[in-house]
Amino acid sequence: MPLNKYIQDGDNQDLTNERFKATFDTEHLATVYHGGEEKLKKLRHIRNEITKRGHLFDSIPSAHRTRAEKIEDVSRKLKNLMETVSDFADVTDNLDMVAIIRDVMGVDGFPLALHTLMFVPTLQNQADDEQIEEWLMEAIQGKIIGTYAQTELGHGTNLSAIETTATFDKSTDEFVIHTPTTTATKWWPGGLGTSCTHVVLVANLIIDLKNYGLHPFFVPIRDRNTYLPLSGISVGDIGSKMGVNCVDNGFLAFVNYRIPRRNMLMKHSKVSKDGSYTAPPHPKAAYTTMLYVRSELILHQSCYLAMAMAISIRYSAVRRQGEIKAGTQEVQILDYQTQQYRLFPGLARVFAYVTAAATVSAMTESCIKDLSHGNSDVLADLHALSCGLKAVVTHQASQSIDQARQACGGHGYSDASYLPSLYTSSVGACTYEGENMVMLLQLARYLMKAATKKDEGAALTPLVAYLGGKSDQISTGNDKFAKLLSHFEHIARRRVMHAYRQMIEEEQHGVERDYAFANHSVDWAKAARAHTKLFIANGFAARVQTISDDAVRDVFTTLVELYLCYELMEMAADLTADGYLSEADVQQLRVQIYESLKKIRPNAVSIVDSFDLCDRELRSVLGRRDGHVYENLYKWAQLSPLNQKNLPHVEKYLKPMTSKL
Amino acid sequence: MPLNKYIQDGDNQDLTNERFKATFDTEHLATVYHGGEEKLKKLRHIRNEITKRGHLFDSIPSAHRTRAEKIEDVSRKLKNLMETVSDFADVTDNLDMVAIIRDVMGVDGFPLALHTLMFVPTLQNQADDEQIEEWLMEAIQGKIIGTYAQTELGHGTNLSAIETTATFDKSTDEFVIHTPTTTATKWWPGGLGTSCTHVVLVANLIIDLKNYGLHPFFVPIRDRNTYLPLSGISVGDIGSKMGVNCVDNGFLAFVNYRIPRRNMLMKHSKVSKDGSYTAPPHPKAAYTTMLYVRSELILHQSCYLAMAMAISIRYSAVRRQGEIKAGTQEVQILDYQTQQYRLFPGLARVFAYVTAAATVSAMTESCIKDLSHGNSDVLADLHALSCGLKAVVTHQASQSIDQARQACGGHGYSDASYLPSLYTSSVGACTYEGENMVMLLQLARYLMKAATKKDEGAALTPLVAYLGGKSDQISTGNDKFAKLLSHFEHIARRRVMHAYRQMIEEEQHGVERDYAFANHSVDWAKAARAHTKLFIANGFAARVQTISDDAVRDVFTTLVELYLCYELMEMAADLTADGYLSEADVQQLRVQIYESLKKIRPNAVSIVDSFDLCDRELRSVLGRRDGHVYENLYKWAQLSPLNQKNLPHVEKYLKPMTSKL
Repeated sequence: MPLNKYIQDGDNQDLTNERFKATFDTEHLATVYHGGEEKLKKLRHIRNEITKRGHLFDSIPSAHRTRAEKIEDVSRKLKNLMETVSDFADVTDNLDMVAIIRDVMGVDGFPLALHTLMFVPTLQNQADDEQIEEWLMEAIQGKIIGTYAQTELGHGTNLSAIETTATFDKSTDEFVIHTPTTTATKWWPGGLGTSCTHVVLVANLIIDLKNYGLHPFFVPIRDRNTYLPLSGISVGDIGSKMGVNCVDNGFLAFVNYRIPRRNMLMKHSKVSKDGSYTAPPHPKAAYTTMLYVRSELILHQSCYLAMAMAISIRYSAVRRQGEIKAGTQEVQILDYQTQQYRLFPGLARVFAYVTAAATVSAMTESCIKDLSHGNSDVLADLHALSCGLKAVVTHQASQSIDQARQACGGHGYSDASYLPSLYTSSVGACTYEGENMVMLLQLARYLMKAATKKDEGAALTPLVAYLGGKSDQISTGNDKFAKLLSHFEHIARRRVMHAYRQMIEEEQHGVERDYAFANHSVDWAKAARAHTKLFIANGFAARVQTISDDAVRDVFTTLVELYLCYELMEMAADLTADGYLSEADVQQLRVQIYESLKKIRPNAVSIVDSFDLCDRELRSVLGRRDGHVYENLYKWAQLSPLNQKNLPHVEKYLKPMTSKL
Repeated sequence: MPLNKYIQDGDNQDLTNERFKATFDTEHLATVYHGGEEKLKKLRHIRNEITKRGHLFDSIPSAHRTRAEKIEDVSRKLKNLMETVSDFADVTDNLDMVAIIRDVMGVDGFPLALHTLMFVPTLQNQADDEQIEEWLMEAIQGKIIGTYAQTELGHGTNLSAIETTATFDKSTDEFVIHTPTTTATKWWPGGLGTSCTHVVLVANLIIDLKNYGLHPFFVPIRDRNTYLPLSGISVGDIGSKMGVNCVDNGFLAFVNYRIPRRNMLMKHSKVSKDGSYTAPPHPKAAYTTMLYVRSELILHQSCYLAMAMAISIRYSAVRRQGEIKAGTQEVQILDYQTQQYRLFPGLARVFAYVTAAATVSAMTESCIKDLSHGNSDVLADLHALSCGLKAVVTHQASQSIDQARQACGGHGYSDASYLPSLYTSSVGACTYEGENMVMLLQLARYLMKAATKKDEGAALTPLVAYLGGKSDQISTGNDKFAKLLSHFEHIARRRVMHAYRQMIEEEQHGVERDYAFANHSVDWAKAARAHTKLFIANGFAARVQTISDDAVRDVFTTLVELYLCYELMEMAADLTADGYLSEADVQQLRVQIYESLKKIRPNAVSIVDSFDLCDRELRSVLGRRDGHVYENLYKWAQLSPLNQKNLPHVEKYLKPMTSKL
């Protein structure tokens, strides 16, 4: 029995040969990747159940459809899914649901994505018991469909600028919702365009002319029978986007629209009939949803990247192009060092990000537990970290995906590869849920405080303790990775303290701190990235110790080595500028990268096989398990709607030019 | 009269304020950017003529259409254009035509793009007089529509692997065209999908069982009256792609399909009736078309980048978000150092690439002249350089465009910004016309030869003369940029010689050169990039001297400074690893970047105004000259086809869930 469990008769021979080279059991790596045997087993059970249900499949590849047809298709699958999913999965298990949605819907979204991801959880977390009783079950059953309406046309990440108002009218016991300007129009919420009957609206609560700040309201917007907008409401779709076009992102504006007082979500804050306001017991409770969404987001990104790697690495084993020595056979493009250099660091990042997501998710759970006991000590650390991770992971994942796409040459540009969808979905996350630059600067402000503490000799929390270390001593620990990790610390410390000192110097020349910070924000953003990369690197390196299977641990160790050396080389100027490392040291890092590439090469296909993604999930002709790429590209192309007869542009414009009749 | 000539009453006030800050006359910079007064005047004349012709416009933004509708729309405009263009433009002037096509068609292409760019020029350059007489006029008039069919499903940049055959049959005086395998199917040619009646086919010429290599053939593929494929031909569209979806890229396969002998293009090579073959007089003549296409491509990229910069910088002046100091007014996002750092290096690159394109275009013209006199001395230098420029410019331009897109936050993700189209069009060029990594390695082989010459003490041609210089002497020339340029030389020399020495060392251990080269191809690719950046930097810096207007020269100087320092900092590890620069030197470069950003800030909007792009060309709600972004985003959204009533997904799937009836 070969170690790679994905070999089948009749597969492309190059791919089979690759699989026979595996030095580890793919079942063991799959178990590590998916977080344990139980989880992997459950995932496979779910997949098998979906396989039995033809009504959950695409009849033709989505790329051949118009946007409206795509949305119709995902809605069909969604309805079928809602009717049957509880037969084969635990709908309260988030990981199950994410896996099902990815399998059935793909990465271009669906109209109820925000209903599932934001609307229902917000009701669960922010509605009081009576409200939950009234609304939650209908929401879970899809009898009411909602989204989360926060962002406005003129206002994104800076929530304090939101303009929409909910003014309490004591006389009728109602809130009057109003959109005072064009820029106050709610803009972007997914599903709002055509699909929602309700929204959770984030608006300024006004009582007796006093603004109590942003609060969530449960607001019906469309008639559930006719889907027409309710009176006083203007709502619609905002049009096509770079990607994720199966989501109908929408706009929403109100003209003095009235809802009952009890439509404010009142678990935390309350407004009583007489207009008296009760503040929430712990004002930072809302942060935890954000933390939860961000750790989800990192997991999604690692999955998009895993898909891109599976597609590109399999195709690179199938594709032969060019000769290393003229007159010899064309080689598998995976044999080129340049191709390995484009792909394998992305492969290593998949595991790094999966590890980071798991760590942050565990930290978030424990933080929420602490919070419920009134302890918010780690909240600031964790919030700052989640900002940095969001920014670094989305940026790097999208970059690695586009490299994977380009590494497939022309066919990577075709929608048949599915790589364009993976890229556009991934890169979208650089902007949503907190624009990346804003995220980095939020982390930077936390680092600024930490640097100040260090300067003052105050105690540092564990995540920033390295700031108190020294840069001139290279670790001599026995741990294989200790030296490399100390380089990460050196860079992070150097960048944070550099930005800090620049800022302090300006302050000493009379510039206010906020402006001094702004004047060095590029340096601060770089510092925030370095801090985040240190966190990822530490976690990834530590993960190795937890792997019991020797062969898998060997592979994992090589991936960690590649990851560490590659990321360090990307920041090499920070290692040599101050003489911390010599030219020979840097050359050593470079050589170690090339050695790692060579070591990974024979296992590359087996590593991506271990992501255990089936062809239906991958949606990619290039990434097929069987490697039969070319004949299936041909079949895929035949389905293009342009292959119909009597196309309008030919009939109306081209034929009249060319016709000899 | 203000210096910025784009101010109009009623514009967004922030944008007007920006324009009043201009320190230079926008007419003067526009003249420099467009290569002279005459060219600018001509361009404006053309634009005015297009403005008069409503049938050349889009009736609704293309983003709201399906792919088939988009193609119908561009075909309509194309037909109108072909009928009227000679009334107002010189159809033989390539720059005119490019400007017209960009204005009327946008960047997503049109079915006859390859007809214009490749098919007609190939006939002009490779058909003999009799063939030109027979075919060219019909091609120019669009009575025959063609494309260039070279790439095959299984074979891209490595032309030597192309499988399609054209076998001479003496008995009938015909060629028999055949597609021997699935992988030999022609794949990707633009316009082939649905629009072409003919192709120039690149196939192996076989006479009496001997393969004479690749030659071009003029091959009819569809009936000009019915548009049905001719017998023996299988042809169709290959489906949707990441971008450029108004081009119908296609596939094409032949089963023993016969064409007359005289359908081989015979300007250079010939086959006579008796099967005797005449080789071309100078075998490298075909290179010149490639050189021409690549210098065009660099120009297109600079234009895409200019459009992205115009959109993003104008929007950054209109958009206010966040406060630098809490409690103060929200600031224009262009005021953030991080935003400037994301955008202004891209702005500088626009001018750097325009300059590089002009230089290479002039070099190509002179090279073609030399070739016609039998002198091919500079061909190797120029060919290598064009490979590097193609790779570096397409990569950096697409990266800068995506940064510009992300710098617009959520709205940059909307097709209303036009930035997604600019990105997907730009990044496509990383792959077509020679995959970038292959391009870099072609340049690297040339650099390897140059390094060998240097090692042997032989003379070096001007473009690589720097390899013979020394790295330990920082230039002390008086020229403002001399020192910075010497840093570029240092990096390029260091990277080339490092890759070379690594390779030689392996050779000395018995590894064959081809394999030793392959084992260090990542280092070679880095060397090729550094060589290319040196060329761009030298040309850009030299351009300053040619500008007569003081105020424009000042602006230009700052852009060059930013460009040089930014690109150097991107490669800073190569400046410090060997102690060539000290930490203080590098810090000085960094500070110079931030100073340049500050200097550019007040002129930023006026600089992009000087690209003289009208709103119709920009196709971007965010980039509107008048800055009225929000109300027009709202208008744009109303046109989304999802804002129709009775959408299928709502009627079939959502209403049945939500309805209370």
